[in-house]
Amino acid sequence: MITVDHILDAAQRIQPFATKTPILSSSELNKRLQQKIFFKCECFQKTGAFKIRGAANHMILATEKNRDIKHVVANSSGNHAQAVAYVARALGLSATIYANQTISPIKAAATKSYGATLNTYSSRQEADKAVELASQEKNTLWIPPFNHPDVICGQGTAALEALDALKEIDAVFAPCGGGGLLAGSLIATKALAPSALVIGAEPLNANDAAMSLKKGQIVHLHETPNTLADGAATPAVGEHTFPFLQQLDDFVEVSESRIAYWTQWLQHLLKIHIEPTCAMSMEAVLKWAATAPKNSRALVILSGGNISQASMQKIWADDHLAYFPNS
Amino acid sequence: MITVDHILDAAQRIQPFATKTPILSSSELNKRLQQKIFFKCECFQKTGAFKIRGAANHMILATEKNRDIKHVVANSSGNHAQAVAYVARALGLSATIYANQTISPIKAAATKSYGATLNTYSSRQEADKAVELASQEKNTLWIPPFNHPDVICGQGTAALEALDALKEIDAVFAPCGGGGLLAGSLIATKALAPSALVIGAEPLNANDAAMSLKKGQIVHLHETPNTLADGAATPAVGEHTFPFLQQLDDFVEVSESRIAYWTQWLQHLLKIHIEPTCAMSMEAVLKWAATAPKNSRALVILSGGNISQASMQKIWADDHLAYFPNS
Repeated sequence: MITVDHILDAAQRIQPFATKTPILSSSELNKRLQQKIFFKCECFQKTGAFKIRGAANHMILATEKNRDIKHVVANSSGNHAQAVAYVARALGLSATIYANQTISPIKAAATKSYGATLNTYSSRQEADKAVELASQEKNTLWIPPFNHPDVICGQGTAALEALDALKEIDAVFAPCGGGGLLAGSLIATKALAPSALVIGAEPLNANDAAMSLKKGQIVHLHETPNTLADGAATPAVGEHTFPFLQQLDDFVEVSESRIAYWTQWLQHLLKIHIEPTCAMSMEAVLKWAATAPKNSRALVILSGGNISQASMQKIWADDHLAYFPNS
Repeated sequence: MITVDHILDAAQRIQPFATKTPILSSSELNKRLQQKIFFKCECFQKTGAFKIRGAANHMILATEKNRDIKHVVANSSGNHAQAVAYVARALGLSATIYANQTISPIKAAATKSYGATLNTYSSRQEADKAVELASQEKNTLWIPPFNHPDVICGQGTAALEALDALKEIDAVFAPCGGGGLLAGSLIATKALAPSALVIGAEPLNANDAAMSLKKGQIVHLHETPNTLADGAATPAVGEHTFPFLQQLDDFVEVSESRIAYWTQWLQHLLKIHIEPTCAMSMEAVLKWAATAPKNSRALVILSGGNISQASMQKIWADDHLAYFPNS
């Protein structure tokens, strides 16, 4: 049973590794939506995404419990790979990342620059098999990207930090990949701002969580989803995150066109380089803003800012800035 | 004769209107260049660019001297238009902006949202004629974008703020449009960090300042330059800025491909949405870094972050992130 105390402990524990990221607002956006929206900017987090919070919490706790751990492994082709590589180096552990060979050159280079070994495979399935085998070796720890209580607690520290700084928040928004960020945000919010709504967003093209919520059990995607929101392309949520997702107040599925729309607008209004994954939340904010009392206060967790050139090209292909956001 | 005292006064004067913008660094970039580079992020300035500093200083001083001024006019299709509109509203003045009808929809919308009237014309020449005529009306003040001592002093407050925060800086970099930002930065640097180099950068496709420096007199471009760095497409520097540009330690002309290259890299490394105009400076930083002692400290003034969709599309058309910056 995870409580806010675990998240408070995690916040203390990861302090040497994670940055207290800034909170930004856009007066233009607030004027148009007639609400007060606060953005927690994890793009300024070390390695460019919130993932370091969960990886650090898990790795510190695990190595405290078992001092023989000398090596960590992870399967990821995204922000989790970079986070594990970064924390491993800081803790004096060696790290090997197992990824599909389609890993973007920029993320591959970043992972290696943090000192990790990167092994690539011809498919995700092969990478998954390889990491499982490697994890059975002596003194080796496998770091999951979301499906572990310590990872969820670490990821919840982003919302905790923001709620502590902002006070009085009426709604909290986060994107859903494996559900770790949303689960952690929900636990923190229910403790620090009990009356606030907690709302998730997911790509329509990778809507396994929405389907799982409708069905009441975890649904797996069997094909690699085609979505700009690569951080939310996870094939299924986990058994540790799903019970928290079931407590959400709303869950919004977002089309690719609206993902591009909000990525353009947030980059433009906030002047920050954020991933399509976190821009999705704005579609949920728009829905909420239409019925919430005027000048309600919302917190939006912007998960990261690691974007390949191929994604940027797609995001900016059409002119979404010609149409202003409004409710 | 402009001195640093005028810039110090300007900094006090514009305090209610201008934000103290943050200074960011990239440990990855510093590792690769083996230097310490500090970025003053004017993209987070009100209206998204440094221009508000000069506009505010000039408008406050002019309206203090002449209390009959009720209306301001400016010809601009860029960041200056938004800055004048914003400050005018804050000072309780009405504002009319005269622009070419090719003004980007996003900048037109922003200018109007700050309460200014926007008059568009079929050419820049026609807009220039119209503003000149309008400026002759009673109680009307024409705000130039760079060629005025009070504007230069206001624009110099960005470097002043950064030098005050950073101490010990070995080189200062800024882009050159009309030369106001560079002139102001030079005056501030020569006073606060006298041994530091001050270096400018300009698009090769709009190299009027480079030609002017070679010839020893102001050269005018006669055709509209084709460059991604739209903030540096000014046809000529001014008689107030040119004498300062002649004191620069180096001046670098940058190709369109390198402008796109550095815009991608700075957006990626710093996680901010910055204009191609300010990314140009990095080409000058790279040249400087090759011969400067290791771990020298450089200040780069990032001028703004207002970018149209058409520009973003061009910036991200090719994959420059595949090749890491190095010296």
